[in-house]
Amino acid sequence: MNGADALLKTLADNGVELCFANPGTSEMQMVAAFDREPRVRPILCLFEGVATGAADGYARMTGRPAATLLHLGPGLANGSANLHNARRAFSPMVNIVGDHATYHRRFEAPLTSDIAGLAWPNSCWVKSADRPDDIAPLTAEAIVASQMGQRGVATLILPGDSAWSEAPILSAQAPTPVRTRPDDARIDAVAEALKAAAKPVLMLGTNGMSEQGLAAAARIAAAGVRILVDTFVARHLRGSGRFATAKMLYFGEMALKDIEGSDLMVLAATRTPVAFFAYPDMPSILVPEGCRELTLATPEEDGVYALEALAERLNAPKDFPVAAYEAPNAAPTGKLNPYAIGDSLARHLPEDSVVADEGITASLPLFLQTRAARRHDWLTVTGGAIGQGLPVAIGAAVATPGRKVVAVIGDGSAAYTLQGLWTVMREGLDVVTIILANRAYQILNIEFDRTKSGVQGPRAKDLLGIGDPALDWVALAKGFGMAGVVCQTAEEFDAAFARALAADGPSLIEAVL
Amino acid sequence: MNGADALLKTLADNGVELCFANPGTSEMQMVAAFDREPRVRPILCLFEGVATGAADGYARMTGRPAATLLHLGPGLANGSANLHNARRAFSPMVNIVGDHATYHRRFEAPLTSDIAGLAWPNSCWVKSADRPDDIAPLTAEAIVASQMGQRGVATLILPGDSAWSEAPILSAQAPTPVRTRPDDARIDAVAEALKAAAKPVLMLGTNGMSEQGLAAAARIAAAGVRILVDTFVARHLRGSGRFATAKMLYFGEMALKDIEGSDLMVLAATRTPVAFFAYPDMPSILVPEGCRELTLATPEEDGVYALEALAERLNAPKDFPVAAYEAPNAAPTGKLNPYAIGDSLARHLPEDSVVADEGITASLPLFLQTRAARRHDWLTVTGGAIGQGLPVAIGAAVATPGRKVVAVIGDGSAAYTLQGLWTVMREGLDVVTIILANRAYQILNIEFDRTKSGVQGPRAKDLLGIGDPALDWVALAKGFGMAGVVCQTAEEFDAAFARALAADGPSLIEAVL
Repeated sequence: MNGADALLKTLADNGVELCFANPGTSEMQMVAAFDREPRVRPILCLFEGVATGAADGYARMTGRPAATLLHLGPGLANGSANLHNARRAFSPMVNIVGDHATYHRRFEAPLTSDIAGLAWPNSCWVKSADRPDDIAPLTAEAIVASQMGQRGVATLILPGDSAWSEAPILSAQAPTPVRTRPDDARIDAVAEALKAAAKPVLMLGTNGMSEQGLAAAARIAAAGVRILVDTFVARHLRGSGRFATAKMLYFGEMALKDIEGSDLMVLAATRTPVAFFAYPDMPSILVPEGCRELTLATPEEDGVYALEALAERLNAPKDFPVAAYEAPNAAPTGKLNPYAIGDSLARHLPEDSVVADEGITASLPLFLQTRAARRHDWLTVTGGAIGQGLPVAIGAAVATPGRKVVAVIGDGSAAYTLQGLWTVMREGLDVVTIILANRAYQILNIEFDRTKSGVQGPRAKDLLGIGDPALDWVALAKGFGMAGVVCQTAEEFDAAFARALAADGPSLIEAVL
Repeated sequence: MNGADALLKTLADNGVELCFANPGTSEMQMVAAFDREPRVRPILCLFEGVATGAADGYARMTGRPAATLLHLGPGLANGSANLHNARRAFSPMVNIVGDHATYHRRFEAPLTSDIAGLAWPNSCWVKSADRPDDIAPLTAEAIVASQMGQRGVATLILPGDSAWSEAPILSAQAPTPVRTRPDDARIDAVAEALKAAAKPVLMLGTNGMSEQGLAAAARIAAAGVRILVDTFVARHLRGSGRFATAKMLYFGEMALKDIEGSDLMVLAATRTPVAFFAYPDMPSILVPEGCRELTLATPEEDGVYALEALAERLNAPKDFPVAAYEAPNAAPTGKLNPYAIGDSLARHLPEDSVVADEGITASLPLFLQTRAARRHDWLTVTGGAIGQGLPVAIGAAVATPGRKVVAVIGDGSAAYTLQGLWTVMREGLDVVTIILANRAYQILNIEFDRTKSGVQGPRAKDLLGIGDPALDWVALAKGFGMAGVVCQTAEEFDAAFARALAADGPSLIEAVL
């Protein structure tokens, strides 16, 4: 068995079962080894951003790392925007990047580059397995590192000669890291501060957002604390049967207005909320003046334990109200807009569905209209790097067979990683892709004003519009082998969406806004 | 005038006239400023890899830098594979990356990342304009840096507050760097060694490949020295009326066989040739045993001067033979394959056309069949990062209005940056895109064997094939507003290609292999 075998065996022995791959010459040994290790399933992507985003989606749904397989520095770079999102989602991932043989690196061949340098900005761990006997131990170390602290992307560089040489060590064990618990004194202090506060708010971040964490937050809410979820949480548990939570609003001034008068902000598995962008004469930190901040748990710590302990300290009731299913009976009518689409989602999303939301300007209307939909998970663009919706949907669909996945993506965003449509088809994934076709980078028309950039001249208008030529998403879907349909009205959309969900397997709806 | 104005004015004042852009919120001031600086034309791309590849293509054709405009770390990352190719092409480029306002950086907002860290692996210069009065001087410095030495990507980071603040300095001058000339002693030594050598070869690299450099190389050839062009030269000047050059072969063992028995290798504006990849038991360095190496000029030095001086030292004849146009009169017939496509290129490529070659396994047949085509420039995948062909074609077409540009791209490669089809349409560029549809990463089927990866099992076969589902390139083109046609036979292709060239403007041909 060679180094590539050792890598796959170590992944499999530690429960890493998937590899989203886009291999090249330096990864051929890995390609060959998949036939010798049935426990790790490779899934081919036509672009690396699809592979890394899919691994992110998988991690969000399972809490466990998937692997990727990328081709040297350029392959890594192509995957890096979605590694950035994965980093912000605290998604564990074993990011495998092939490299030249160790002895070949110094010759500056055309594909030589500083792989570690490219990897560090989005990785929590980067090492290169420069000898075949490094591979199993470093693979295990990568698996652990990806799940340590706040969790993240562990990048393992695999030189060709390590992969093709006989491996003296075939596997190694990766113990599951244990999260640090905040100590009693801290939890006590937060509890006392909450009791004394007039208008407290608790910010809930990704690593506190599990069924258990949400239930504890619900109890804390029943004790009189407002719960607000981070704007870009990796996986928002929502819908009927769950405690209903609002999230912090995207625009800073709206977010601040929403929590105006709060005298205490408790951070549960998150950090001080900050504005997505800076704007002239607007604040960066989204904490009202005079509001005290206390950290219950950092993202690195066991936020769920902390929430449960806090609920106990507050003598919070065991019972808490949950949302009931409540959606429009009648199909939305008239002009197609994000609210109508949100109503259709609320009507038709089945129990335990998953929504990958990259609606950008449409996200808030979609989110609001589905607050009382059936139980579902809502995945957001955690790092703000667009081209994330479809890849994350792929990973979620692979992770949760039997659950319907709906990707709702702005046309501008979808163009970044449209190659994902091919993997959806190839794997026959149960993903309905909704393209919100407003023919513009619509958010930028808003941001143009917010950044006080003046009045749009013809060139500025042109740079923010993508309607010339208009993208034909049904044709693009066909190009990747997928059936699609265009909808111009709310009625058309509602019917098309219901049909798409009823039919198992992939399809695309272009919703013209 | 604000910082964004200062940036554009400094670009324009120094002759940088184009900006391939994919802006976001942090770049809104730049978007606004384009309407106030008519001398810098923005061209919108739907994906950053298209923008950076286009700037590379522009630089290859003009020798001058274009600018890019990218959105923070993820935008930079998306553009980095083609920055890698640009670095290997020695293409000057002013790569502008927007950033958060300086005071906002420390808050770890969702889009915060280590932009400089991501930029360095592919840049020769990276600086951030952290104050508005930095902008003009640093922009000038970037323009100079991009043209210094071997030339490359100068990355200028532009924080939001620098862009929106009043700029005290509006412009700065960027002197054109002068290339260092190799000294007489070195040229004399090379001339003496060549005279004494039994079987010398001169390797010609990108920075020696101009009309003047090629003419000097031709004279040197007439004095008895074999000229061999680097396998991946940025721009190969070829065709009728020019000295005909072969290039070093891609596979190391073939390359070595081709120069077997050479006792002297002279490096003209290039470095020691090395194998593209390492393989078990194959050499990395492509210099025959016992062959002496001498550097006439490094890529940083004035290679054209050195070649001319060497021709003089060798008393080389002033006249040299040039290729005459020689192509099949009759259309190729029968099965469509790369040789047939090469024949059609030879038949129909008009004078002064440009070929962006990302044919991968088809590249050598295409190259061989066009050796006696009409005068044309041949652009290659310098860094081996695929997804380069269409973007480079865009840049070449923008750079050379009136010249026909043909992009010949493998289907696997084309899928990486297919969003480029949109910019071709939007700008009405005279680009014919030929997709070589073999439904596989065909090169990897060869590399699988060369890396001694064994026998392909079903999973390996699956990972190297992209025919399930098959990409429908006519539909994909339609999705971006472009007309396309499928060809199954050599006759069909020849006719379709002739038609596409005769019609001005964009079209796509899917050539099924």
